[in-house]
Amino acid sequence: MTYCVGLLLKAGMVLLSDTRTNAGLDNIATYRKMFVFEEPGERCITVLTAGSLSVTQTTIARLREAIEHPDTAEDASIMAAHTMLDVAEIVGATLASVRHDINSKMEMSKVSTAASMILAGQRKGGAMRMFLIYPEGNFIEATEDTPYLQIGEHKYGKPILDRVVTPDTTLEDARKAVLLSMDSTLRSNLSVGMPLDFAVIAKDACRISDQQRIEPNDEDFRAMSQAWSNALRDGFLKITI
Amino acid sequence: MTYCVGLLLKAGMVLLSDTRTNAGLDNIATYRKMFVFEEPGERCITVLTAGSLSVTQTTIARLREAIEHPDTAEDASIMAAHTMLDVAEIVGATLASVRHDINSKMEMSKVSTAASMILAGQRKGGAMRMFLIYPEGNFIEATEDTPYLQIGEHKYGKPILDRVVTPDTTLEDARKAVLLSMDSTLRSNLSVGMPLDFAVIAKDACRISDQQRIEPNDEDFRAMSQAWSNALRDGFLKITI
Repeated sequence: MTYCVGLLLKAGMVLLSDTRTNAGLDNIATYRKMFVFEEPGERCITVLTAGSLSVTQTTIARLREAIEHPDTAEDASIMAAHTMLDVAEIVGATLASVRHDINSKMEMSKVSTAASMILAGQRKGGAMRMFLIYPEGNFIEATEDTPYLQIGEHKYGKPILDRVVTPDTTLEDARKAVLLSMDSTLRSNLSVGMPLDFAVIAKDACRISDQQRIEPNDEDFRAMSQAWSNALRDGFLKITI
Repeated sequence: MTYCVGLLLKAGMVLLSDTRTNAGLDNIATYRKMFVFEEPGERCITVLTAGSLSVTQTTIARLREAIEHPDTAEDASIMAAHTMLDVAEIVGATLASVRHDINSKMEMSKVSTAASMILAGQRKGGAMRMFLIYPEGNFIEATEDTPYLQIGEHKYGKPILDRVVTPDTTLEDARKAVLLSMDSTLRSNLSVGMPLDFAVIAKDACRISDQQRIEPNDEDFRAMSQAWSNALRDGFLKITI
């Protein structure tokens, strides 16, 4: 499985993904699930992926091909699309078409080809927008009421987001929130694993303002995880009922 | 859905269940999911249920019938069984047989008849034992390494248990832990709802030592929930990364 989360805040968009993939518990591997398409200052698009690796890799490959050869590609290029809504339509259509192609090969084996994506981006002059794209290619959008989207193993890390994230959350606090949300998921579910990919797209920057790969031995992450454990334990001890 | 949790500790067993059932989101109701079978001082058995309500209700009804008419019942009585392992076998066999009966009526409608149970109990002279019984009737048992079992919507409330529960946890702390685990689940998932049923079986008491229904307007629960929210927010604010 996977855990990816994206926050759409007034100050910008904050994204985090893990890197574990597995074909059965006895075959795990590390694959990047965060993909950036960027023309700095003009347009910045980030895609996070969950689900069948062959489907998500082929989808990303086709999106790249369409950018490089926009004339010959069936779908238009996401770097040329006029709006983020058009980008979501292109990504959704590509995902659904790849799934359809691969599904026909998989019918015999009953292996799931479901995959979903978080799409976040902004083009110059447009608004920041963030979408959750379903395996069928349709999508929903993050709003003020629900300023975050999750794909994959989303339940363990949801309570902390529900409690601390609002559209007014700062980018710094948002970083903490997604890392703690991931920390809870990592502790409770083996199918989600380090390293992590973290990115921020500050509002109107139209570029990746901050990007980081957090390795398993990252001292800061380990210290944060420990501090959070201690805070939870202290809070737990203080509560009386 | 449902959320039920049971802790097997050195000091005793602590159990908590919600009461929400639903047939679609537009048809919700309140049903007890915690059932006690007790001969105080001699034997105390508690069953928590999740899944298809018609399956769990019929299973409990058949278990009761077998207790009242042990001679005519196909399965032996759980109040007469020699060990808690025998009790688990009886409950598992009854659950599987009920599911089989109901499944044959449901084939056309593709409605799930899956149901699972947590079984906790002790008979005089025996050890405290806690089992998770799967829809097929097989089961696993709580151990020192994993001193808790969950059924239903278990993911939201797992992180807190993973962090604070060990076999040495006191009954008082265990009460807090299961209530906070439930609180996280209630906040993040609509299909789990108040009131709650709480019970403790202290070690070697062979009776329910403490039992409580926690209503939606319970002031203590609300205060605990608020204190936990505050503790999480304070902890969150203090962490630096």
